[in-house]
Amino acid sequence: MKKYKIAIDVMGNDSAPEVLVNGAIDALEENEELEVALFGNEEIIRAVLQEREADIARVEIIGTSQVINNHDNPMEAIFTKTDSSLVKALVALSEREDILGLINGGSTGALIGGALRYNPSKVPTRPALAATLPSESGGFTCIVDMGANIDCTPSQLVGFARQGTEFMRRFYSIESPRVGLLSNGSEETKGNKLVKETHKLLKEAEGINFVGNIEGNRAISGDCDVLVADGFAGNQVFKASEGIAIRLITDIVKYAKKTGSGEIMGLVKHLMGIYDFSALGGGIVLGVGKPIIKARGECSSDSIKNTSSMLLNMLKNQHLFEGRDTRDGN
Amino acid sequence: MKKYKIAIDVMGNDSAPEVLVNGAIDALEENEELEVALFGNEEIIRAVLQEREADIARVEIIGTSQVINNHDNPMEAIFTKTDSSLVKALVALSEREDILGLINGGSTGALIGGALRYNPSKVPTRPALAATLPSESGGFTCIVDMGANIDCTPSQLVGFARQGTEFMRRFYSIESPRVGLLSNGSEETKGNKLVKETHKLLKEAEGINFVGNIEGNRAISGDCDVLVADGFAGNQVFKASEGIAIRLITDIVKYAKKTGSGEIMGLVKHLMGIYDFSALGGGIVLGVGKPIIKARGECSSDSIKNTSSMLLNMLKNQHLFEGRDTRDGN
Repeated sequence: MKKYKIAIDVMGNDSAPEVLVNGAIDALEENEELEVALFGNEEIIRAVLQEREADIARVEIIGTSQVINNHDNPMEAIFTKTDSSLVKALVALSEREDILGLINGGSTGALIGGALRYNPSKVPTRPALAATLPSESGGFTCIVDMGANIDCTPSQLVGFARQGTEFMRRFYSIESPRVGLLSNGSEETKGNKLVKETHKLLKEAEGINFVGNIEGNRAISGDCDVLVADGFAGNQVFKASEGIAIRLITDIVKYAKKTGSGEIMGLVKHLMGIYDFSALGGGIVLGVGKPIIKARGECSSDSIKNTSSMLLNMLKNQHLFEGRDTRDGN
Repeated sequence: MKKYKIAIDVMGNDSAPEVLVNGAIDALEENEELEVALFGNEEIIRAVLQEREADIARVEIIGTSQVINNHDNPMEAIFTKTDSSLVKALVALSEREDILGLINGGSTGALIGGALRYNPSKVPTRPALAATLPSESGGFTCIVDMGANIDCTPSQLVGFARQGTEFMRRFYSIESPRVGLLSNGSEETKGNKLVKETHKLLKEAEGINFVGNIEGNRAISGDCDVLVADGFAGNQVFKASEGIAIRLITDIVKYAKKTGSGEIMGLVKHLMGIYDFSALGGGIVLGVGKPIIKARGECSSDSIKNTSSMLLNMLKNQHLFEGRDTRDGN
């Protein structure tokens, strides 16, 4: 059986490292093709592995002495904290052939900056953060950027369009992904200055299948495969969608309790399968060498497990398209 | 019985004027305290009134010969099309004591510009568009701006905070409305340039009960009474929330049909009562003389009926607080 080894940085998150190690073990139990390299406090990692009686044949431990967290200045930290779990993991991702991807749940700024420094794409570009959400039409929509790049230029947004196009082609086998631009109206004349300028550039950009402006209520309707936005607006669409979905589901649970309807709990399970975005894993870092996924700020062991499965699936699909990617010049 | 007369501009909308006149008649039938002044094509208005056998004692018709629609240049149109239904309605709103509010479903730009020209507040300020949405905690959150002012300055956002504060005090009897600032993180350091600058100003602004940054997933959670955003970001939060809510409800209906569960249809009705934002009426124009509501672009007769009821309720509540408003210097 072919094995896929991924690096997991178990430090620097709001949750305790124990939680992340437990999530990694859950992922191993669920996916027998998976192997993990855990970066962080060796003592804690060993203790959890022992307690859980984990299959240590599939676990490598890389002990690190430093942590980069949200209180650090990201760009400073990635250059000075060279024995941090994040920097060590990024270096290993870049240098070691057997490590195919990375999961981190810490500071987004440090992850993005660190990825650019230690794991750049062939043509170095500023990395972006993307989310793939289930669209109304049954497929997936990749929103890029969803919060890593807050103040953007039009050419950065065109870069997001390219990164999203490449990602959807490589991992979702869409030959010519449709790219939409998030705006406050579908007409070409609608948008803030950034959007209007970007619209012009996207219309003329070669290799981008631009389908025009998309409004917030159509963001993940399936009208496009890649939705381009600056990180501030993308973050709003992502979080507002998630917030309302969870609120509706919570309301339904309350309603079911009040009415004592068992049938409705089946519905809740059905909806959670589609709209619990946290279960989808995390944000995908685009524009980097090997795949990196940013697990959510408030990591649970479930989110590490789901993110690991997501990364594993990506890696498995990616191989199918390596030949085509080369041919297409990606 | 005290009567409340409102102006309704039945032209300039994506829907036919007949639809809007029908909505006005529905509103009259639902609210016996309501009177309407209909601005638009007299022939069409008379035909619908006759067909519906409406109570014409509560209807005034003001025939107009011009229409301002989405194809017009808004600022040009409000100065040149002086016999348009919109300009006539705005002038009547400003000059006639018996007309207490206005509903329009046409071009947002023309409405906002026209309101500033013909129905300014005592201290003229650029009007904003607000939405009041049901919050998780059972109250209402006023999002301002939701799409009228797309590229904003920090001081404009402080203006929105003041307009929202005044609105929630006057119409929702909240003594000291909590003002939140939409951002991509709750920490003070999060946000784009506009948000960071605005955060500083709001912290120091007198008369504003600023509670800090609010993330998109908490937008209408009830953490604040007024959520301040530039019109682009506010539009995204509003539309994304609406889009996902409607999509979930549609999913539930499909699920109910598949499982043949009657109970679930009761749930759908319950959810539609909270999350069908289009039924809430429309956008409230803040920073103007008398109340103006912008009905939605794709006006149905239902939305005109609901918007009329919303405006009537606002007018009835407003009177209760007129004394206090004066005392507070509003």
